[in-house]
Amino acid sequence: MITSRFFTTFVPLFRKNMERKLILITNDDGVSAQGITVLTDLMAGLGEVVVVAPDSARSGAACAITSTQAVTLHRRGDMEREGVSVYVCSGSPVDCVKLALEQVCPRRPDLLVSGINHGDNASCSIHYSGTMGAVIEGCMKGIPSIGFSLRTLKHKCDFSPYAEDITRIAHFVLTEGLPQDVCLNVNFPEVAELAGMRVCRMGRGRWVQEWISANNPRGMNAFWLTGRFLNLEPHSEDTDYWALDHGYGAITPIKLDMTAYEVMPNLMSLTKEAE
Amino acid sequence: MITSRFFTTFVPLFRKNMERKLILITNDDGVSAQGITVLTDLMAGLGEVVVVAPDSARSGAACAITSTQAVTLHRRGDMEREGVSVYVCSGSPVDCVKLALEQVCPRRPDLLVSGINHGDNASCSIHYSGTMGAVIEGCMKGIPSIGFSLRTLKHKCDFSPYAEDITRIAHFVLTEGLPQDVCLNVNFPEVAELAGMRVCRMGRGRWVQEWISANNPRGMNAFWLTGRFLNLEPHSEDTDYWALDHGYGAITPIKLDMTAYEVMPNLMSLTKEAE
Repeated sequence: MITSRFFTTFVPLFRKNMERKLILITNDDGVSAQGITVLTDLMAGLGEVVVVAPDSARSGAACAITSTQAVTLHRRGDMEREGVSVYVCSGSPVDCVKLALEQVCPRRPDLLVSGINHGDNASCSIHYSGTMGAVIEGCMKGIPSIGFSLRTLKHKCDFSPYAEDITRIAHFVLTEGLPQDVCLNVNFPEVAELAGMRVCRMGRGRWVQEWISANNPRGMNAFWLTGRFLNLEPHSEDTDYWALDHGYGAITPIKLDMTAYEVMPNLMSLTKEAE
Repeated sequence: MITSRFFTTFVPLFRKNMERKLILITNDDGVSAQGITVLTDLMAGLGEVVVVAPDSARSGAACAITSTQAVTLHRRGDMEREGVSVYVCSGSPVDCVKLALEQVCPRRPDLLVSGINHGDNASCSIHYSGTMGAVIEGCMKGIPSIGFSLRTLKHKCDFSPYAEDITRIAHFVLTEGLPQDVCLNVNFPEVAELAGMRVCRMGRGRWVQEWISANNPRGMNAFWLTGRFLNLEPHSEDTDYWALDHGYGAITPIKLDMTAYEVMPNLMSLTKEAE
């Protein structure tokens, strides 16, 4: 007789061998960053892991692709272990995803995770984010994709307060999938204990006072990018930025389609047909 | 007696002196590209022009920002003329906009135009586009912003079929403005005569077969990015891609807010509050 106890033991083992989930990992801080190391450890508990990450930091790479030079890809056997293969790429985070899918992955990944970024990617920062660039690329290719970011300025952080939620969200997406052309942007505040997790919209904001003059020995005009984030709706409790400011993790669903449908009627006077 | 004839003559001249419109121009093909030269000529008829463009091509730069090195800014007096000042920047198109607004422009621009890009930025290509990266940055800073792109592979093109529409659209936006956090992505097909202009949504598509192996004398794995665009809805007549395929120019309103609002209810099981 086949008991239910038998099934609960047998079926998972069977599935594990026959169709272990494949998880692609990348980031924009580079393969050596602490965030991607932590993320790899967490994901290794959920499936087979392939890491394809930039060889060094690519912060602010957005969805940039490398079109003016060849991109190199190296296997880093020294960083591998059972169930985890690691490759580094000379290109952008988006290049990493494109290379992973066509040149590295043994089969189509069931999940793409990017991060854990050192620095948040809430509000308008998503547009500049290489972490989220990789996620948008994965989503474009039809792979359920999640970006994880921590609001911190540190290279070495305590990621333990977020481990359970990262695993929980990844497991949810592995199990449930995501709607077509939608990915997730998950941000955490740097806290000893989260106040909770919220589903949020992307808040309105912009960076201001963005340049400082760089001393230059040859009299060139040179500037370093810096800046201060201006929250344009600090009291809106449904935004990602509010959540971070109040100790919550923020889960924001992001879509590829950027069309402002509601504005289309206002533009109809610009249409014309050739006579 | 003040006649209407008097007003039509006098008022524009008065306005011209007192508050001539300021138009900021950038691109991702670099300051020497034909597209930005044509765009500058067209915009010089609508107001005072400031060009701040990359010193060379930055195709595929998306919304990338330069965070790991200083960015230089040079005035190019040799490229200037009455009403047109020109600066080149060592950074990305987004860096150009950020530098223009804080370090170059004598006052807040009334309009930002980017392009004319050599290559279309329809469908998913908007995510990779440096042309549109600059437009998104302008929009983020509250400036009415438009990207113009031509579906071509050529460095030298005949832009004359699009001149009237570019001027007309720019004049419309200078006069009417654009809604908050919305910019325009305008794409043209390479034709002798446009079939017309349409207001479109962003079509669904993705790039496939994206890498070719690069010969490498030292045995490295190296690849060049290439690819073929896969239109995922070739029969949808309301998309930008359909318009271009059928000889129409496409005007697509684009919004900064990428939140997938319709998906938020599906994620509510991921929320939690600390006990």
